Amino acid sequence: MSETAVVASTLTDKLVAAREASIVLAQANAATKNKALRTIADAVMRNQSRIFPANELDLANGRENNMSEGLQDRLRLDEKRLAGLSHAVLEIADLTDPIGQVIRGSVLPNGLNVTQVRVPFGVIGAIYEARPNVTIDIAALALKSGNAVVLRGGSAAENTNRVLVDVIQSALAEVGLPFEAVQTIDEFGREGAKELMRARGLVDVLIPRGSANLINSVVTESSVPVIETGAGVVHVYLDESADLDTAVDIVHNAKVQRPSVCNAVETLLVNAASAPRLLPAVLTRLRESGVTIHADERSLAIFPDAVAATEDDWATEYMSLDLSVKVVDDLDGAIDHIRRYSTHHTESIVTNDLARAERFLAEVDSAVVMVNASTRFTDGGEFGFGAEVGISTQKLHARGPMGLPELTSTRWVVRGTGQVRS
Amino acid sequence: MSETAVVASTLTDKLVAAREASIVLAQANAATKNKALRTIADAVMRNQSRIFPANELDLANGRENNMSEGLQDRLRLDEKRLAGLSHAVLEIADLTDPIGQVIRGSVLPNGLNVTQVRVPFGVIGAIYEARPNVTIDIAALALKSGNAVVLRGGSAAENTNRVLVDVIQSALAEVGLPFEAVQTIDEFGREGAKELMRARGLVDVLIPRGSANLINSVVTESSVPVIETGAGVVHVYLDESADLDTAVDIVHNAKVQRPSVCNAVETLLVNAASAPRLLPAVLTRLRESGVTIHADERSLAIFPDAVAATEDDWATEYMSLDLSVKVVDDLDGAIDHIRRYSTHHTESIVTNDLARAERFLAEVDSAVVMVNASTRFTDGGEFGFGAEVGISTQKLHARGPMGLPELTSTRWVVRGTGQVRS
Repeated sequence: MSETAVVASTLTDKLVAAREASIVLAQANAATKNKALRTIADAVMRNQSRIFPANELDLANGRENNMSEGLQDRLRLDEKRLAGLSHAVLEIADLTDPIGQVIRGSVLPNGLNVTQVRVPFGVIGAIYEARPNVTIDIAALALKSGNAVVLRGGSAAENTNRVLVDVIQSALAEVGLPFEAVQTIDEFGREGAKELMRARGLVDVLIPRGSANLINSVVTESSVPVIETGAGVVHVYLDESADLDTAVDIVHNAKVQRPSVCNAVETLLVNAASAPRLLPAVLTRLRESGVTIHADERSLAIFPDAVAATEDDWATEYMSLDLSVKVVDDLDGAIDHIRRYSTHHTESIVTNDLARAERFLAEVDSAVVMVNASTRFTDGGEFGFGAEVGISTQKLHARGPMGLPELTSTRWVVRGTGQVRS
Repeated sequence: MSETAVVASTLTDKLVAAREASIVLAQANAATKNKALRTIADAVMRNQSRIFPANELDLANGRENNMSEGLQDRLRLDEKRLAGLSHAVLEIADLTDPIGQVIRGSVLPNGLNVTQVRVPFGVIGAIYEARPNVTIDIAALALKSGNAVVLRGGSAAENTNRVLVDVIQSALAEVGLPFEAVQTIDEFGREGAKELMRARGLVDVLIPRGSANLINSVVTESSVPVIETGAGVVHVYLDESADLDTAVDIVHNAKVQRPSVCNAVETLLVNAASAPRLLPAVLTRLRESGVTIHADERSLAIFPDAVAATEDDWATEYMSLDLSVKVVDDLDGAIDHIRRYSTHHTESIVTNDLARAERFLAEVDSAVVMVNASTRFTDGGEFGFGAEVGISTQKLHARGPMGLPELTSTRWVVRGTGQVRS
């Protein structure tokens, strides 16, 4: 038997166990699931003496493998971060249980009572990169929505994730739920991740979280349905009627408040007629916060304290204090540019013109379209969902910020008294 | 340049044209779209002299290639069928336009006005087999929901589909909509179908309609998101408390009323304690209608006028006047059997016991679960959707009968007055 076949067979055992656990979890009521989440929140805090050494081991391996400072920071768990994670689990426990919610229903002319209700997916697969916080976060969200979850968290966080999953599994057993509801498959390496992507019938949905490369490879290779949580090449367009102060504040907030996230703006588009009025103040404020401006020819002429933009800049998600800037002739020019380069995450127009605002909202085909608001508001927490599973940039099933309902499917329930079709 | 590369480049041109057309269509109001549909309904009737010879050519080719009688019947268009198709298009025109519907919305504490609205997917790809009625049906549903559609209808109906698409395109042009909103790619053959499945970014969703083989190959090969409209290995379970007349009527209706469709029952499960009471009458009624019974050992002992079932029978979608029958010990035995063999389409329990009815509804994980009703009711028309796109057996995006809203995505619209995130 080849090594691959051995891996597949053992991984399949885990997935079958996850499927069995999902059947139990689907019937668990909210009280039981919330008790499990509170036990997990508590267990995470009580097991620091096991979690920190495992995390230190991963960090040491990371340093040896020249892991970047940024990645090391994402990998690191300390007392404060663990307390934050534990608190987040308690917050998820406090959310409304989506399972069993009736979405619509009616009595048909023949007397059949038909309702559409929320049910769990069953088994969720999560593929992500060296971020132990995602391990706890996605496990808690999956449990709350009645789903079993199979985690592939990447070899760089393997030791931390193993201990975290063990802590979660003990907590599940403590409240009488099957521990196989949360499992890691990190020990199967890259081959395991590939098997997970092909486990149609055992895994109901895959959620990749991480870099554009990771997400793209999951989307391309997977035969299991995927919810794509994607990159954000996000645009703000300053219309000719834009208020100067509003433009300065929104662009600054959208770029500087947290540049490393997907809802931060990456490209500023400015109407040609108002560029001389708007650009100096908007870009000066950004420069004061350390933003590097990548300017096209026309904006460079107005604001020389910038580097010349190349074609690559328009398609780049910097995730840093960098911003590309382009002068466009009119709203059509802005929409055309967005259509060409956007990842369909979030775009915002700053304007006081009603007709152009409505045209922007109607014609820009992104998950979130805004008027006179910072793109940083595209967020499950800000939208009032209480928790965020990710931000979907695909059009199927979920689009934009995803909350607990987006981790569920539906089922039609038909109650009759012997009806037959004529 | 290889032949494959040539095909890809020309097909891509068509897909790009479909994308451009979808942008126009997304902005078209309901009045314009309905006018297009009524023009199409009229054009289909006016162009019989072009449609019938093309259909006769396909039928002649089919006979030459030994196409089965059943497939020839599905391929055949006559005056009555064409009138039915034309009428169906008019009915779709009369349905409520889903585009622009507000699904939810609120004003956030910071004053941001947030709404989630229905928008078209953009470009839908449809892959199906030699059924010209699907060409008209899916084109009408796509147009009504503001989507462009690219059709791959199979070489066996190529001549009929070419004329139908040409008739539709002329009607679109007549009302000022881009004719590229409805296109066929039959001329690119199998290679074209494969390209379509890989056209991520140009095609938003693929809908396969047809045999289990066709659907399975699309699901496995496609990198474009797929809505799986699947096979139905549908079960009816007769509980020990089942009323005899109700059991006879429901099983007979579920099997005999239209055996060739996915919501017809394929396996009957019977509680062991009541099998002697129920099976003779239930199966005698089926035999009188010409149904062949494939019985397990225990049911064969009760009803000898049957053939012995093999393991294969439990996983078979007969789509014919055949039914597999199995005696199970209790509800758990029925649920276990369904879990193992069901395609998660529709299952129904016949019972007068409340607790067991509720357990069946809660624990059977299928798109539609029923109590005391014929499985034939799993149907968009019966559910009151007005039109049916297909019946989804997957858990993502849509599950069960799909209507017009299931052909749409959503978008979040955020209206602010200069809000920034703190």
